[in-house]
Amino acid sequence: MPATAEMTDHIYKILELVGSSEKGIEDAIQNAISRASKTIREMKWFEVVQTRGHVENGSVRHYQVILRVGFTLEE
Amino acid sequence: MPATAEMTDHIYKILELVGSSEKGIEDAIQNAISRASKTIREMKWFEVVQTRGHVENGSVRHYQVILRVGFTLEE
Amino acid sequence: MPATAEMTDHIYKILELVGSSEKGIEDAIQNAISRASKTIREMKWFEVVQTRGHVENGSVRHYQVILRVGFTLEE
Amino acid sequence: MPATAEMTDHIYKILELVGSSEKGIEDAIQNAISRASKTIREMKWFEVVQTRGHVENGSVRHYQVILRVGFTLEE
Amino acid sequence: MPATAEMTDHIYKILELVGSSEKGIEDAIQNAISRASKTIREMKWFEVVQTRGHVENGSVRHYQVILRVGFTLEE
Amino acid sequence: MPATAEMTDHIYKILELVGSSEKGIEDAIQNAISRASKTIREMKWFEVVQTRGHVENGSVRHYQVILRVGFTLEE
Amino acid sequence: MPATAEMTDHIYKILELVGSSEKGIEDAIQNAISRASKTIREMKWFEVVQTRGHVENGSVRHYQVILRVGFTLEE
Amino acid sequence: MPATAEMTDHIYKILELVGSSEKGIEDAIQNAISRASKTIREMKWFEVVQTRGHVENGSVRHYQVILRVGFTLEE
Amino acid sequence: MPATAEMTDHIYKILELVGSSEKGIEDAIQNAISRASKTIREMKWFEVVQTRGHVENGSVRHYQVILRVGFTLEE
Amino acid sequence: MPATAEMTDHIYKILELVGSSEKGIEDAIQNAISRASKTIREMKWFEVVQTRGHVENGSVRHYQVILRVGFTLEE
Amino acid sequence: MPATAEMTDHIYKILELVGSSEKGIEDAIQNAISRASKTIREMKWFEVVQTRGHVENGSVRHYQVILRVGFTLEE
Amino acid sequence: MPATAEMTDHIYKILELVGSSEKGIEDAIQNAISRASKTIREMKWFEVVQTRGHVENGSVRHYQVILRVGFTLEE
Repeated sequence: MPATAEMTDHIYKILELVGSSEKGIEDAIQNAISRASKTIREMKWFEVVQTRGHVENGSVRHYQVILRVGFTLEE
Repeated sequence: MPATAEMTDHIYKILELVGSSEKGIEDAIQNAISRASKTIREMKWFEVVQTRGHVENGSVRHYQVILRVGFTLEE
Repeated sequence: MPATAEMTDHIYKILELVGSSEKGIEDAIQNAISRASKTIREMKWFEVVQTRGHVENGSVRHYQVILRVGFTLEE
Repeated sequence: MPATAEMTDHIYKILELVGSSEKGIEDAIQNAISRASKTIREMKWFEVVQTRGHVENGSVRHYQVILRVGFTLEE
Repeated sequence: MPATAEMTDHIYKILELVGSSEKGIEDAIQNAISRASKTIREMKWFEVVQTRGHVENGSVRHYQVILRVGFTLEE
Repeated sequence: MPATAEMTDHIYKILELVGSSEKGIEDAIQNAISRASKTIREMKWFEVVQTRGHVENGSVRHYQVILRVGFTLEE
Repeated sequence: MPATAEMTDHIYKILELVGSSEKGIEDAIQNAISRASKTIREMKWFEVVQTRGHVENGSVRHYQVILRVGFTLEE
Repeated sequence: MPATAEMTDHIYKILELVGSSEKGIEDAIQNAISRASKTIREMKWFEVVQTRGHVENGSVRHYQVILRVGFTLEE
Repeated sequence: MPATAEMTDHIYKILELVGSSEKGIEDAIQNAISRASKTIREMKWFEVVQTRGHVENGSVRHYQVILRVGFTLEE
Repeated sequence: MPATAEMTDHIYKILELVGSSEKGIEDAIQNAISRASKTIREMKWFEVVQTRGHVENGSVRHYQVILRVGFTLEE
Repeated sequence: MPATAEMTDHIYKILELVGSSEKGIEDAIQNAISRASKTIREMKWFEVVQTRGHVENGSVRHYQVILRVGFTLEE
Repeated sequence: MPATAEMTDHIYKILELVGSSEKGIEDAIQNAISRASKTIREMKWFEVVQTRGHVENGSVRHYQVILRVGFTLEE
């Protein structure tokens, strides 16, 4: 979805991931991307599709995010 | 919406809540769940439907989240 | 969904209602809210989710609205 | 959401439920409604919001449906 | 979309119409249904898909509604 | 919506239907299509837009589906 | 969104407005357009994005509409 | 969906069509409209609901568009 | 999308599949999952995105489902 | 919506425009952007929200696109 | 979208903004609003339309939010 | 999403791609498919999810499309 000039000749593939964290939404995003970066090197951007979580005894136990992640096919 | 094996024989009810906080989005989520947990004990998960807030003199005064919260009917 | 300053410390619950009227859309909204106000006192706002109706012999027989209604949990 | 003539003077409340079944989608619908009918007597219609399920060893272990259920407030 | 018992054995067809009126939204709905009833006799219900209109010199000149209208195939 | 090679030179028209059944979702789909096939011969595919139903005494009395059905204009 | 022949060579800009009224939905639409017409002269059409309102003591206190309004850039 | 003054007293019917072309998107739109114009004379506007196509050996074999087409009922 | 406690430290990947069956919707779901399980071992849940099918001589010839399927990246 | 590194410190404003052309979709996009560029200099990207058009005597008379256009506030 | 009593006689305009931050989602919201407040004084509320970001070497480089911001026209 | 008879026993996987072109929308679609066809042989159909682009000095610099592409798992 990026639209800057230097990207004209790139083709992206979009991947959907679910990440989670006990700390917060940003940490759940980072966890999903860190884990996926072990096998996918050229991730460029993400988009949050859904934010949710787990509740235990009236407290948020962890946050969960569903991400669409774009990476270049050239690598 | 949870879909794990040990939950096969549960029926959930979904409730919609609005929570708010001056600190941030995660705190607004927790506030809604803490308040609702006074009368609903078996809350299991939530989903953020909308994130919004109030602005005063060019600063975010507080955040507001609309949540769908699932809890078991068995209790 | 309201976002004004004096509401910072409120938690809302959202309820979904269906109201109807032979007169018009505004009257169907008011009917749903009047009926619900017998058991729910602190209703604050509504949002129209769907507008529909019943036809008989080529005339609108009545209007039907689906509303999401927000009320405070404090009462 | 029903819109027939004899329903003109009814107000409905809509409830969201999650039901599940190992047999199939229709059975998951019926399970949610049977369970809820213990406390809510005047359920009139439902609408399937989402169909999902749990997988174990490459087989569907159970189906899960999210329903919006309408019932009259008069009773 | 009606779901009452006496309708179990009916098949409906859904038609999409645009109606307009200088007076208001309910009148635009009625105009579309009146006009269509000249050729379609068994219309049973409608649903408003969109509400819009035309502006002239800072005033609403007329309202326009897009309706989905259901009628039985039996006739 | 089909997109296979031999269909390049076809124009489809899409029709919206509501079918119902006491037995289940697949039977409601088949009922709508059977009934419509009396007047429309070249139906090729369908898409389920909504699944809903009627409840009586805590049991599903019948299922209702809204379908978009495509057929060729050539016949 | 209008698409008539004489408009081929126009470029529209779309503005989003919120209007309100104690009287009804049409009046809330007119109020938003009247107020905006003080600074924007060439408004041509509107579309209702959302209809909502405020409740006080079980009565609708006022209606609120969110509009998308199109106007020509030529003036 | 047009909303110009001279159209105040028209009622439109909306039809959904699928057209296709090996050349491009505009040609697929025109093909659907040309074919439908053999039986429907007063088509006034269209809206593209979906754009898709068929792939063969890594090349787009043809484009397919789903259109909503509006025409006046007066003729 | 699962949100239970024991899943806190998992990252899921979501895959989209299309399955079909002449028997029914549940069988089409199972077919897609069985086929995919040959190469993807840790599938945990699915969500039905669309239900559709093929019609031949006025009968449903087969059902088709589009699924989003989640599996853990750990394996 | 662009998400590249060199854009970290930019704030964008999004504007909605309607453009049209007798030639085709790309030309309608370009017309809207050319016209708007007379008063807005720093437009960076666009997104097509809707594609529609006008029909005359069974031919597409012109195409119309609704665009969301992003531009930097810094200029 | 606010719906409280003291706002009955206000007309709001809605603006769409994109903000970004290396720190987190709340900071990206605040950045967009701070920057816009230099030219728009009476901003009252915001709604998050989309949350996304930029990835570099497997880490989130910055967060990006798209906001709809409402402000009164009276000033 | 294809639904023709000869496809009954196929399972499809859906992939999401972003392609771009300086020439136009059809060319951006073809570029994404050509590039992906180097590693995925049995692509059968695509669906355009979003159309957007990059603007430079008031001109469209390139078009960008997001596609969902279906291919058979059998090969």
